Parts: sequence; structure tokens; C-alpha cells
Amino acid sequence: MPATSAALVSARLQALRAHMAAQGWQAVLIPSSDPHLSEYLPAHWQGREWFSGFTGSSGTLIVASSKAALFTDSRYWEQAEAELAGTSVDLVKLDGPATPAYANWLRMQAGKGQLAVDGAVLGLAQTQQLIQALAEVGWTLEAGNDPLNAAWAERPPLPAGTVFEHEAPFAATPRSDKLAALRQAMQDKGATHHWIATLDDLAWLLNLRGADVEYNPVFLGHALVSQNHATLFVGEGKVPAALQQSLARDGIQTQAYELALPTLGDLPAQACLLVDPKRITWGLRQAVPDTVKVIEAINPTTLAKSRKTDAEAHFIREAMARDGAAMAEFYAWFEQALGREFVSEITVDEKLTAARARQPDYVSLSFPTIAGFNANGALPHYRATPQAHAVISTPQGLTAQGLLLIDSGAQYLGGTTDITRVWAIGEPTAEQKRDFTLVLKGTLGLSRTRFPRGTLAPMLDAIARAPLWEQGLDFGHGTGHGVGYFLNVHEGPQSISKAIPDTNMAMQPGMITSIEPGLYRPGQWGIRIENLVLNVPLPSTVPNAQPGTPEYGEYLAFETLSLCPIDTRCIDRSLLRADEIAWLNSYHAEVWRRVSPMVQGEARAWLERRTKAI
Amino acid sequence: MPATSAALVSARLQALRAHMAAQGWQAVLIPSSDPHLSEYLPAHWQGREWFSGFTGSSGTLIVASSKAALFTDSRYWEQAEAELAGTSVDLVKLDGPATPAYANWLRMQAGKGQLAVDGAVLGLAQTQQLIQALAEVGWTLEAGNDPLNAAWAERPPLPAGTVFEHEAPFAATPRSDKLAALRQAMQDKGATHHWIATLDDLAWLLNLRGADVEYNPVFLGHALVSQNHATLFVGEGKVPAALQQSLARDGIQTQAYELALPTLGDLPAQACLLVDPKRITWGLRQAVPDTVKVIEAINPTTLAKSRKTDAEAHFIREAMARDGAAMAEFYAWFEQALGREFVSEITVDEKLTAARARQPDYVSLSFPTIAGFNANGALPHYRATPQAHAVISTPQGLTAQGLLLIDSGAQYLGGTTDITRVWAIGEPTAEQKRDFTLVLKGTLGLSRTRFPRGTLAPMLDAIARAPLWEQGLDFGHGTGHGVGYFLNVHEGPQSISKAIPDTNMAMQPGMITSIEPGLYRPGQWGIRIENLVLNVPLPSTVPNAQPGTPEYGEYLAFETLSLCPIDTRCIDRSLLRADEIAWLNSYHAEVWRRVSPMVQGEARAWLERRTKAI
Repeated sequence: MPATSAALVSARLQALRAHMAAQGWQAVLIPSSDPHLSEYLPAHWQGREWFSGFTGSSGTLIVASSKAALFTDSRYWEQAEAELAGTSVDLVKLDGPATPAYANWLRMQAGKGQLAVDGAVLGLAQTQQLIQALAEVGWTLEAGNDPLNAAWAERPPLPAGTVFEHEAPFAATPRSDKLAALRQAMQDKGATHHWIATLDDLAWLLNLRGADVEYNPVFLGHALVSQNHATLFVGEGKVPAALQQSLARDGIQTQAYELALPTLGDLPAQACLLVDPKRITWGLRQAVPDTVKVIEAINPTTLAKSRKTDAEAHFIREAMARDGAAMAEFYAWFEQALGREFVSEITVDEKLTAARARQPDYVSLSFPTIAGFNANGALPHYRATPQAHAVISTPQGLTAQGLLLIDSGAQYLGGTTDITRVWAIGEPTAEQKRDFTLVLKGTLGLSRTRFPRGTLAPMLDAIARAPLWEQGLDFGHGTGHGVGYFLNVHEGPQSISKAIPDTNMAMQPGMITSIEPGLYRPGQWGIRIENLVLNVPLPSTVPNAQPGTPEYGEYLAFETLSLCPIDTRCIDRSLLRADEIAWLNSYHAEVWRRVSPMVQGEARAWLERRTKAI
Repeated sequence: MPATSAALVSARLQALRAHMAAQGWQAVLIPSSDPHLSEYLPAHWQGREWFSGFTGSSGTLIVASSKAALFTDSRYWEQAEAELAGTSVDLVKLDGPATPAYANWLRMQAGKGQLAVDGAVLGLAQTQQLIQALAEVGWTLEAGNDPLNAAWAERPPLPAGTVFEHEAPFAATPRSDKLAALRQAMQDKGATHHWIATLDDLAWLLNLRGADVEYNPVFLGHALVSQNHATLFVGEGKVPAALQQSLARDGIQTQAYELALPTLGDLPAQACLLVDPKRITWGLRQAVPDTVKVIEAINPTTLAKSRKTDAEAHFIREAMARDGAAMAEFYAWFEQALGREFVSEITVDEKLTAARARQPDYVSLSFPTIAGFNANGALPHYRATPQAHAVISTPQGLTAQGLLLIDSGAQYLGGTTDITRVWAIGEPTAEQKRDFTLVLKGTLGLSRTRFPRGTLAPMLDAIARAPLWEQGLDFGHGTGHGVGYFLNVHEGPQSISKAIPDTNMAMQPGMITSIEPGLYRPGQWGIRIENLVLNVPLPSTVPNAQPGTPEYGEYLAFETLSLCPIDTRCIDRSLLRADEIAWLNSYHAEVWRRVSPMVQGEARAWLERRTKAI
């Protein structure tokens, strides 16, 4: 979409400040958040972009009476600098927890006062932290009604996509079984009721999917589950009649989306409500009557959803091979087109998306393709636009040599993919090869790691970074995120990162996580080599090993799911050990074995060439 | 010391239960703890051992009206089973957090009621958890007076060791400088007062040492520090008059130990007290008047103490070389004595201790020597006793072949050592070599790791375990602990372990940590290879690297401080990579370079033999 002009930002901020003055607020905070704490926001909640012009997927805007600031982490610094240029919005580079940074910035503003925010879209835990941090600098939080409505004339309406069933065999577990397991988990915690506000939990539980949010096949809704009833709150007209009947057969009633909050406020006094403080908003939590006992714990569905069943794993392997076939078709075209056709970052996105779309059971992309040539690859969340993108090749020849980073993925009925490869255009330099090989050492080092079941995922982060750390290098994002099953490409609870772990991040069989270390040379090139891996139980070396013996406990290995060649032309072989080369060759043999039956002609020849052992 | 007989335990429990009945308590909890939360307890607080007979250094006894249970973790299971045999005390094997296990055990007892504990010795955070866990099972905590006094007739008095000055040059920073830095840290937190209850913090701050606790050169005391005053609460007669005057010159007054609690209770109403919830007892915290504002944060001295200065590092390196010389003298004797002299685990301890005691500036051992031959080596906290120990050799020959694990260390005026080596008696088996080499890969793998300053120490744990995990093996203790400077061999805040990290565990220059992965074959042998390492800053590869570039930030490397050969006869060379062999050879060359000037004759010949490259 076109960048918002500085003049527009100025006019919009003026309207907001007029409303602030009328309300007696000294500042307004606009997060990147919706009532379901979604990662990708329906346009209705993209107020941060509307009022600042910053289009990145993570960032918070605070508007005070004379100043405004956009807070974002290192992934978005370059992009934010470019998009905020010329506006009166300052960039605050986050290099740690966000809440203290907000409080600190407010402390610097003239005077103290009320910070207004839409409590209905702010996370519970986050709001509690914010209230405390504000108190320390003499500010208070006004988290009542949405502060944007009055100042945002052209605010888009709520999305109205149709809800559909995720059908068998892809939906391998009936929703009645999932509901029964959820009710058992509620009972174990002593809860009579449970509220689900997160859209992927909701979609997973009910085997429903939707199209309300780009890339995530979810729909806006809430669920209230008790031992005998289940209510789905969803926009009227979104669930077709036949599907409503099917839900009713499983004991699920639908109600209007707007009735969610009042229903929560009407919970019986003797209710015991299980809510996940990380997966519910401040507004919802405030709606719970004081008489209701609240049990705070992670959504049972979040844990259950993260553990893919054997049936799901079967379909995921199939989706991965099809995704690899699409990648092979794309790269085969790409390599022959270089110097002969017009190829830009935009063309790359179009051609790759088209190759995926030809695969059976393809639904959509799972996130916007990142195709970054040379310096653009150094922006981990880069997105080429019709207005600004790099050209790689014309019919007259290459426009430049270098590295093309492509981070892409799709939604299939049988799984969600997410893969990053870096491809050489011309002969890579020695520096590029060194960077590529160090990152590859991280990807394959962690991919080979075996570990006890229950290991907290963040504790594995250092293994992927160690080869970079050894050279005094690091990257500013996490090593890996959980991935859904025809659901969100980012899902919890596990995360391989520097984050302080909690016990819900324990690695369990069936979890799917990305492994994607990187290295970014601003203005030059970016490297990221990403595969998805599945936690698979290892056969025990000593059956029934006793506590206190070194073999005690269950172990997990990563099965690498993603199937696409890694460009061996970018490797500095002298930096790889023999065991690392063996891993790479064995991976390429597996890619050939699994993907070659799905491609013909040029793509097959390309696959054979690019999976050769080194 | 001799094991407590089952009959004695029975009589003592009977006395305790009579007292419980008289007081109306349904159970008593006896932790391994003192008012200073020390690791090694003065005999006065060794009630858990008195009433159960279990001599391990970690464990909690709960005595209910008809049952009693000893809770301890996997390090002590074998020892506890042996020592509790014949008594009525059950062993509860802890395989997770202790507090829920206590509550769960109490829930199983007939009836509910009051659990009595000495609040003066129980940690604050721990007690808060306990109160909550008890509430969930319908019990309450009575944390008033010491519940043991009445039932423990022969209770030893408080220790009365003389306090002495840790003098320059070893004490490299004057206490006036340390006090000034502490007051600055207090001011930064907004605190007017600060209470120090932990003995190593106290000793470090005041450059004082004592002999009240075995192995830890500390003395019983508390300190109350304000911006203008500092009071040391210490037993009367323990601080010589000249030292009292020296303290007074630095503005530190001494008061009777018994006045600590009343003084805390008399804090002025407008005081702002900084206390460390992990380093203060429930009893002390309860004594703080309600009018006083309490700021909870880690003791500033704990952070400052962990970062050894360059001057301290200089003396530590010297102490390590001397410690290595003592090890060389011992091993030279040991190897020639095998098959010719009587050698038992006890002799090993005596000879090694004697070799250390001959070194200049030696003060004492830093913990009881663990010398475990074969199966005894499989007990990570084994201690040979005159009644029960293994004989290795007699003048007529070896009694057995196998592996001897020695974990030992000393206090020198210029540093604290802690080292574990495993030595071959005869030719190790293939299985022993495999275990030894896998552990060695863990030790050296982590020793070589470089990492960003500020990395949370637990995040490095997986690197030491990865070679074991790869084979489906693990060990039940942490990988590494912080080490003091002529102070406690275990000190915080950092810890390389599976523990959930907190931000105080960030790795900083000057910290000293052990690296000690292990592998324990119950009934067969144990392996542990331990060195101490110092966090040293690395020169930056790109000076003034900017945020967002991959070279941004400071990096640390581990300097291996411990200097003693690793027994290369135990290595399965086929399991080591070339780069691992190079590390080992370079380590041995450094051991030879640094230690050979300090040994002569047999010891020097031995050192030359055992530091040969492989």
C-alpha cells in the first residue's frame, strides 16, 4: 500500500490531539493490537499505521500534546526511519522491554497526566505492567472506551468473511474430541467456565477457519465453554446455516459477536473462570464480575494445538513436499530468467506465489513474501512495494550481482509452511560466503541437536547462535517460532529465543518450530536460512531407564520438514567440518528423494543440480 | 561423622513429637537453613541432620504426628536411602519444585493443621511460596519461634570464631570504596537503608573473613547500612579491638549480634529499606515496621562481588597455578603409590589436602573433598568416611581397576579453587572412555563458547549438555555455579543450569563460574570434568559498531583458570573432532607453561608426562 504522506500524518495527529484536548487526556497510546491479540490486524484496528504512517507489523505509537513517538524493535528500525521521515513522529528504538520505555518517554514530556488507551485491545499482562510503570512516573492509565473512534473518520468496518469448516481428513481430530479434552483440562484446574479470545485457539478448537485476517485463516470471534455448554460469539451472517447446524450437533450455539462482553459480565456468581492472562485483553478481564473466581493459566487449547498429531504430521509432510516442488519450479524459472527476462523483487513474489497456487490444497500465503535483493535482504521484515523495489535482471542482462533472500510460505489444507533461502546472483564474494556459511552452521547445528523432552525451548537458542557468537556476530530476532497447522504461521507457546522462558515453553512431541538464524549487513546484504522442524520422540536407548541413571527420561530430535535446496554456491567449504558437510549432503539427498517425484522437466533438472552433494 | 543410629533418630523424633503435641502443631518442617541462608550450616542449625540422620548438604525434613519424610533431590537419593534405612523417616525424591511436594505430602497426612517452622531461618521467597502452597491443601504456617529448641537437648551453641581482616594486596579494593559504591547503588534505587544478612556479602563488603562456617571463610553477622552510618551486628568478643578501631575509622560500628532484629524493628518510619527477597529470611522481613517503605531488589553487593577486579584476577591466576602444582604433587605420588602403598579414598583426601596446605597463602579447603572410586564416583556429592570408603591399592597390589573421581578445592588468600578430575586406575574400558570423552566434549565445548555480554548464564547450559543429549544421556545437576574470591565456592547470581533465568544472571566481565558436566552410572562409575572459567571481554572486531549491525555489542570469552591435566588415557580419540583435540592440546600446553615452574622432581616429570599432546 502507498506510504502515508507526512502532510496526512500531520492532519491526522492534529485531529487526534483535538480529541485528546476535549477529553482531558495528555497522551494516547495506540498499540498494534486487536481484541483478540492477533499478530495480523484487521484494518479496523490498524490505527497505529493510520496515525503515524509506519506500516511495520510491530510497533506502538504514543501521541502527547506536543510530541509523538513510534516505539519499535531492531527488526523495524530502518523501515521506521524511512516511513517516519518528514513527519513529526520520533522513532524510539526499543532495545529491551517496551513498557519501561513508554513510561520513560512520557516522563520526559511536559507535565504529567492521563494516558488513554483502548482497554479492549490491550493485553491483560501488558496493561498491568503499564499501569505500574506509569505510576512510577506519575502518570495514570485511562483504559475505557476506544480513544480513536472520534478522530478517525474513515475507520474501516469489522471484517465479514465467511466461516468454513476445516474438513476431514485434514482436520484429523473431531471438534467433539477437542471439546471433551478441553473440558477435562478445565476440570483438572477446577474451572467451570473458560473464555477463549484468541482466534487461532478458537479456530483450532472448533475445526473452523475464516478469512477475516490476512494470511491467518481465522475469523473474529470468542468462545465461552462450560462443562455443558459452548457458545461461539461471531458476526451475524458469517456462519452459513448448514455449518450452524453442524456446530449445534456438537453442542455449540452461535451468538452475536457484540454479545461477548455482556455475556462475560453476566457469568453466574459461583462460576470459576479459567482465563489465560497472556491471551485475554484488559477489557475482557475487567468485564468479569467480581464475584466470579478467576483461575489464571495458559489456554489448554494453546498447549493442545501446539502438539500436532501423527495424522496431522502426515499431511504436513505432504504439504512440505508440495511446497518444495513449488520452490523448485520457481527457482528453475528464476535461474534461467536471469539476464534474459525482467525480474524484480515483485516478479519474484508473483512467480513464487503462482507456483504455490498451482499446488493442490493451496489456500493462501501464510505471510507476505519477503523478497529482498542485496541491501533489502538486510531488513528482516522487508516488503517490496510497487513504488519501491529492487530490479534484479532485465532482458539485457543482470542489473547487479549479489544475494536474494526469500522468506515465504503458504497455507495448505494440510499444513502451514515458512521457509527462507538465500540465492546467489552471480558469484558471491568471500565475505558473503563467510556470512552464509556461519548462518548455515547455526541452522544445521540446532537442527541436529537432540534434547530431553521438556527442555524449555529458549534454552536451545544459544546453539544456533554459537557459530556467529564465536566471530563476534549476532542477529536481532529470535531463532525460531512455533507454527500452526493450517493456522497462524506464528503460534505459541514455544519460542527459541533469548526470551526468559516459562514452563509452558517446554518442548513436547509434535511441536513444529522454525530454525532461522540470520546475519544482516545494513546497506549490503542479509542472510537467513530457515527450515521448519518437528519434535519427534527418539526410541529410548535403555528401555525403562530408572531415575538417577543417565539414560532416564524421553528424548526428542528435530525432523527437518522444509524441503528445498540450500544454495551450495554460497558456501565457504573451509568453514564447515566434515560432520556438517555430511548433514548437508544427507539433507539434500532427502530433498531430492521427496521432491523429485513431484516435479518434471526444467524443475526436476534444477532440483538434481542443486541437491548435488558437496 | 558417625551415622546417627535408627534408635537415636527414633528417640529424637519422639521428643520432637511430644513438643509438637504440647504446642498444638500437627507437623514441623526442618529446613537446611540458617538465619543467613548459608549453604554450609553451623552445627547450631543442623537440626535436620539431628532429627533424621541424613547428612547430605541439601534436604528438608517434615515430621508429622505419625509419619516423617526427608525431601531431597537426585544428587542425594542414594545417600539418603542408605542413611535413612532402618529409621521411620521416608524418603521423598524431589524431581521438581520442593514446595508443592511438601504441600502434597502434608495433604496425604491424616487431618489438617498447623505446620511449625523457624521463620528466622526460612528464606522470604520460599516462605511466601510455602504459605500459598499450604493454603491450597488446608494447612497453615506457624513461623514464630524456633520449634526445635525444646526438643533438642544437646543443641550446639552459636560459633565463636575470630573475625580477621582480608588484607591488601589480596583484598584489592578498600572497604571504604565498596561502601561508597553500595551507597550509590542504594541511592539509585531510592533506598535510605539496606540490610545485609548473607555472610558472603557481609564479608566481601567489609573485607573481613571468619571461621564460623566450615569451608566458607565467613562469620555470623548482619549489616545495616544507611547513607551516613554502617552497623555490623556480630557476636561479642569476635572482632579484636584493633580491628574494631580499623572498622570505626571507616565509619562502621559494631553491635551485638542479638541486637540485629530489634534494630531492624526500630527503623525510622520514613526509612526506605532495600532488601533482597532471596537473601533475607522471613523472620527478618517480618521484623521490618509496617511504616517503612521496602524496596525489593538483589543485594548490590551480590552483583559487585561477582565481578572480580583485574587485581583480583591476577591473584586468582596465581592461586590456580599453585593449586595446579598441589594437584601435580598429589597425582605424582598417587600414580607411583598404586600397587605399592595403601591408598584409599581417605588417603587420597589426606594427601591432596596436605599438598594444598604446603602452598603459600593456603587457608583451608573450600568444600569437603569428594574422592569417589568407581561406584562411589557415581554419587555426585559422595563423601568417604572412616566407616565406609573404598580401598584402591595395598602394598600387595591394586584392589580393583577403574576410575577415581576427585572433586576438590581450597581457599587461598588470593582466591578460591574448585576442580574435578577423573583418573584411570589401570586401563579404562571402552564404555568408560566413551562416557569420559562425551563429558569432556561438553566441558570443552562450553569452555570455547564466546557470547554477548549480558547473555543470561542459564542460556549457555545446553551447549555443555549437547554432546551427552545427542546420545540420549544427561546428568542431574547444574552445569556451573559462580565462585567467590577467597569466599564461598558457590556464589550467585549467575548459574549455568536448567534454572529459569532472571535478569540478574546476566554474564558480566570478571565473573567466575564452574563448567562441570558429568555422567553417573549408578553402581559403576561417575565422570565429571570441571574447570573454573573467568568472563573476559573480547576486543571488538569492529570498534564502535552501531546498533543494527551484526558486530554490535560487547562479547565475552571464558578464560579457563583451573590448571591441571585431564587424563588423556581415558579419552576415546575417535569421538573427538580435530578442533576439539586442538583445544585439549593447547590447554595442556598452557598447564605445562604455567605450572611447571612451580614443581620439581617427580611432580614435574609427572606433569610433563600428563600434559603431552595427543
